[in-house]
Amino acid sequence: MSTQTPKPAKVTVAPADLRALVDGIFQARGARPADAATVADALVWANLRGVDSHGVSRVPRYLELFDKGESVADATPTVERPRSAIAVIDAHAAPGPVALTLAADEAIRAAREAGVGWASVRGTVHTGAIGYYTSRVAAAGLAAVGVVAGIPNMAYAGARGAAVATSPLSVAVPAGRHELVLLDMATAVMALGRIAQLKAAGKELPPGVATTKEGEPTTDPALAAVPTPVGGAKGSGMSLVFELLASGLAANPIVPGYHSGSKEGRRHRQNAFILAVDIEAFLPLTEFTASVEASVDAIKALPPLDPAAEILVPGERGRRSARDRAASGIPLGPKVWRELSEIATSLDVTIPVPLTSS
Amino acid sequence: MSTQTPKPAKVTVAPADLRALVDGIFQARGARPADAATVADALVWANLRGVDSHGVSRVPRYLELFDKGESVADATPTVERPRSAIAVIDAHAAPGPVALTLAADEAIRAAREAGVGWASVRGTVHTGAIGYYTSRVAAAGLAAVGVVAGIPNMAYAGARGAAVATSPLSVAVPAGRHELVLLDMATAVMALGRIAQLKAAGKELPPGVATTKEGEPTTDPALAAVPTPVGGAKGSGMSLVFELLASGLAANPIVPGYHSGSKEGRRHRQNAFILAVDIEAFLPLTEFTASVEASVDAIKALPPLDPAAEILVPGERGRRSARDRAASGIPLGPKVWRELSEIATSLDVTIPVPLTSS
Repeated sequence: MSTQTPKPAKVTVAPADLRALVDGIFQARGARPADAATVADALVWANLRGVDSHGVSRVPRYLELFDKGESVADATPTVERPRSAIAVIDAHAAPGPVALTLAADEAIRAAREAGVGWASVRGTVHTGAIGYYTSRVAAAGLAAVGVVAGIPNMAYAGARGAAVATSPLSVAVPAGRHELVLLDMATAVMALGRIAQLKAAGKELPPGVATTKEGEPTTDPALAAVPTPVGGAKGSGMSLVFELLASGLAANPIVPGYHSGSKEGRRHRQNAFILAVDIEAFLPLTEFTASVEASVDAIKALPPLDPAAEILVPGERGRRSARDRAASGIPLGPKVWRELSEIATSLDVTIPVPLTSS
Repeated sequence: MSTQTPKPAKVTVAPADLRALVDGIFQARGARPADAATVADALVWANLRGVDSHGVSRVPRYLELFDKGESVADATPTVERPRSAIAVIDAHAAPGPVALTLAADEAIRAAREAGVGWASVRGTVHTGAIGYYTSRVAAAGLAAVGVVAGIPNMAYAGARGAAVATSPLSVAVPAGRHELVLLDMATAVMALGRIAQLKAAGKELPPGVATTKEGEPTTDPALAAVPTPVGGAKGSGMSLVFELLASGLAANPIVPGYHSGSKEGRRHRQNAFILAVDIEAFLPLTEFTASVEASVDAIKALPPLDPAAEILVPGERGRRSARDRAASGIPLGPKVWRELSEIATSLDVTIPVPLTSS
């Protein structure tokens, strides 16, 4: 290796070291140790799975929300359990990973009692990758569905401008020797993070991915402003009903306030729900996972369009990435690494030594 | 009007008359009166809403399934309630509307007790428009999610041929003065019924809607064989996880058997689930519906891309169609009307007098 300049570099960092860094930053900003560990685990999980847009690159944004008072590092979410199968969690502006991990656990608890458990979350911020929470439920041997609703940033079929959120849907089921089937998809054609990457690189976007502010389709990275919903009315329809379920049941609707144009209505916030289903109430878990294994095997054995390509099931690419990155470390771009290093320095948190730097 | 030949014609039929016709046919084929009425109501509901591909045009197919023994007109679905929030319905090959109406009612019952109710359906046939069942839940003042899984008829991202089903997702919530928000979407870009219409008319398909048997994209109606999933891996991923939830929890997986190539594995059958959420467990229903009204109003007030076009929310077009067709009658093409008339004649069921015939 050549001699490094002290300039920020592209690095790879061991997952445990990256977790410790984020944990230290959140504790230094007032989070309780358990909550800081939860945030660190959720963000590093996204990086491990290759979803870098939902990983540690979000740390500066959380701190900005703490600074503005829009999120509270040591908020204590409160839980109401109005019925045996329901929990309603008021996040009190706690970071998303804290509120949604609690929701996953409440959904599991309720499902073990009633067979199905629904946990709504009111008033959190940045939830990260929702697959983290549904995976947590699946790892406990239950099936999970999760939805997050947030501030509108996606087009609605037939309308100009940002109208609804890119609200993700996640479904996770335990899958025996395949470990997990994990769907985690935005209701946009292309995730915001990926569009941002292409814009930053000045690369032309594929057609159908974004519109200008005025609602005209564009492939120009400089003009692309609003992601388009997947399948037109299907994607924006899903986003709207997810908002009605996630925000409506949490008594914290986002869409009306946002479009009223008030400052309060445009303040960053998210609502969510996690649904857990106790598989053992239906059939033995091993019988369920055997049928999932057989289904996955059948899909992977389909004749591929490209003979050289492998057919993947939802979550498979992320699982492989996690295996690879657990071994070789998590790659971080110069900007993210510089930001994290500066934050750590300012908070007197130890900066880990990268595994590699280039 | 000119003198009509006795040849089958395009007709419009009063909804009540069409219901009575279907009811009479199903009773004549052995269905109990209540079940025949349920099937008639579900099919005519689809016609009322303009979803003719899921309406009374399906009657001959049900009778064919009765003839083959693949569906049983007077089957008595059985219900198990392993936990307070769960019902598992074995349809015993009863027609879909019978089994899924029962599932909707079981989901409502469980949700009123536990807050959330999940009803799985094992081994039914043709469920018709799944929005019928989620609407039933919403009409009772609860929120609903419904999914149906069936025999593979859609492509899977990256693979050739039919691999997964066009499994629909429906979400319904009560909407105050807007009555209902009802999403009811296939996981394919274009519904099979619509593709069949274009093929029958010899019309070119839009690009991206279907592939040939070999998996090559085509717009040629003569070559189009397999619908493509909406959003590529998103649509086929949704379909796969819906199969794992609907069929897997019902202990009746479809995908592995189908791809094993066995005759039994390719036999028509469907599984489903209906989830009901008791809104009143979260907040007063009127507060919920007020927020849905405000959200719908905000969406409808968005600046339209086409100044002459109205922005619609999910289910709005169907609601208008139902209002129009309730008043003016349900239009039926010559083929459907001839088939229904022939069936009615053979079973000694009275054929209603159409409102119009041309």
